[in-house]
Amino acid sequence: MTYCLGIKVDQGLVFASDSRTSAGVDDVRTYSKMHVFEFQGEALFVLLTSGNLATTQSVLGQINRDLRNPEADYSLRHAKCLYDAAEYIGRLNVRAQKLAALEGENADIKLEATFILGGQVKGEEPGLFLIYPIGNCISTSPHTPFLQIGESKYGKPILDRIVRPELPLEDAARCALVSLDSTMRSNISVGPPLDVMLYHTDELAAGTSMRMDFETPYYRLLKDVWGRELEAVFNKLPRFEWEANQSRVTQLTADAGIVKAPARRD
Amino acid sequence: MTYCLGIKVDQGLVFASDSRTSAGVDDVRTYSKMHVFEFQGEALFVLLTSGNLATTQSVLGQINRDLRNPEADYSLRHAKCLYDAAEYIGRLNVRAQKLAALEGENADIKLEATFILGGQVKGEEPGLFLIYPIGNCISTSPHTPFLQIGESKYGKPILDRIVRPELPLEDAARCALVSLDSTMRSNISVGPPLDVMLYHTDELAAGTSMRMDFETPYYRLLKDVWGRELEAVFNKLPRFEWEANQSRVTQLTADAGIVKAPARRD
Repeated sequence: MTYCLGIKVDQGLVFASDSRTSAGVDDVRTYSKMHVFEFQGEALFVLLTSGNLATTQSVLGQINRDLRNPEADYSLRHAKCLYDAAEYIGRLNVRAQKLAALEGENADIKLEATFILGGQVKGEEPGLFLIYPIGNCISTSPHTPFLQIGESKYGKPILDRIVRPELPLEDAARCALVSLDSTMRSNISVGPPLDVMLYHTDELAAGTSMRMDFETPYYRLLKDVWGRELEAVFNKLPRFEWEANQSRVTQLTADAGIVKAPARRD
Repeated sequence: MTYCLGIKVDQGLVFASDSRTSAGVDDVRTYSKMHVFEFQGEALFVLLTSGNLATTQSVLGQINRDLRNPEADYSLRHAKCLYDAAEYIGRLNVRAQKLAALEGENADIKLEATFILGGQVKGEEPGLFLIYPIGNCISTSPHTPFLQIGESKYGKPILDRIVRPELPLEDAARCALVSLDSTMRSNISVGPPLDVMLYHTDELAAGTSMRMDFETPYYRLLKDVWGRELEAVFNKLPRFEWEANQSRVTQLTADAGIVKAPARRD
């Protein structure tokens, strides 16, 4: 599996991805899932990938062949806006799946791939799109400032609590790291190294890129502080009323606002 | 959907469940998913339910009919151990699905149900089992002190971080509430009221039961403290090196242990 996310805040974009792929528990590999296409001063595209590895590699291969081919009908260099580029990647995604399905004999293999495309084209605001296996896409909104692909559930609560458009870019990057950390603790199909990129609005060039694993001092520190402080917060949570009395009382008073539900004898 | 969990610590057991069921977004209902069967001084069983509501109600109905029928081959009253009871519920689960599949004409409906059964039978340690749709089951272990059914991923990271067998029962209950809270924030298919029960080892009777919703003062306080303190912790996370310098530097030094990955031009 995979976990990748993109966050759009007022200051710019954050991209983060793990790098574990597996075709089964006995076939685990490491691939970067963050791919940067930079046209300095003109456009920047960052593509995060999830799903069938052959499909995502086929899409990436075609993107690169189109870029190298001066006679290609379309390439990322031609993209007038980010949506344009997202539609193009959607088309490549559908085509890659169709070709593999036609050629393949094993109908049971899931060929689907999902992408996050983010970046900026000169003259436009930065943007983020999630591109579905059927080629269509959705974008972020002020109420939905992040998009996730792959194993997205474990790391969603912290994003829901913290991410807002006015969050500084660095905080958004830290939140992405915590979200990845929580996911990796709870699901072995998501694993390091992690790729993180911070893109500042209007730079139109690749931003600050970091690669981290469990031994990277910054990541280790972040992980330690988060884990330790979270336990401390947990210990600050309000006690149940009977705990204050030092002895356990099985009946809570109405004052605590807790109705002792009668034990239902079904 | 549903989210229910059981936690086994040295002091006893915690059960927690939401109560939202839906056969679709336009058919949302509230049902308690926590069912208590109490044989004071002899045994206590708590059953948490998830999956197809007709299947879970069919299983509960049969449990109750067997209890009322003095000639039943087996009922919870006969259970010599918790595993025995788990196997019995597994059989009822499989039978309920088979009957509905035979009678039903719509093969597309998912009839599966999953249960958590916890409690204690006199002479035994307390225990927790997760009963699968095919009728078999797994139990907790010291390394896996909690079991979850339904929408389990959102609320798993906090359990993974906090729950250990030596955790006091009340802390385990608070952790279950935080886990439910995180899930409800991120997924509308899980909703209040929440049922929570704390069972102390060897009481062999229903423990402290609580029912909470968003307006319950204790739950509101817990939610507020957790949300606020989590933001405070977030703000304590270590800064990236360039933030200390007050100005942004795109290149991180090797000292920070972060290797600036070259932006890959794929």
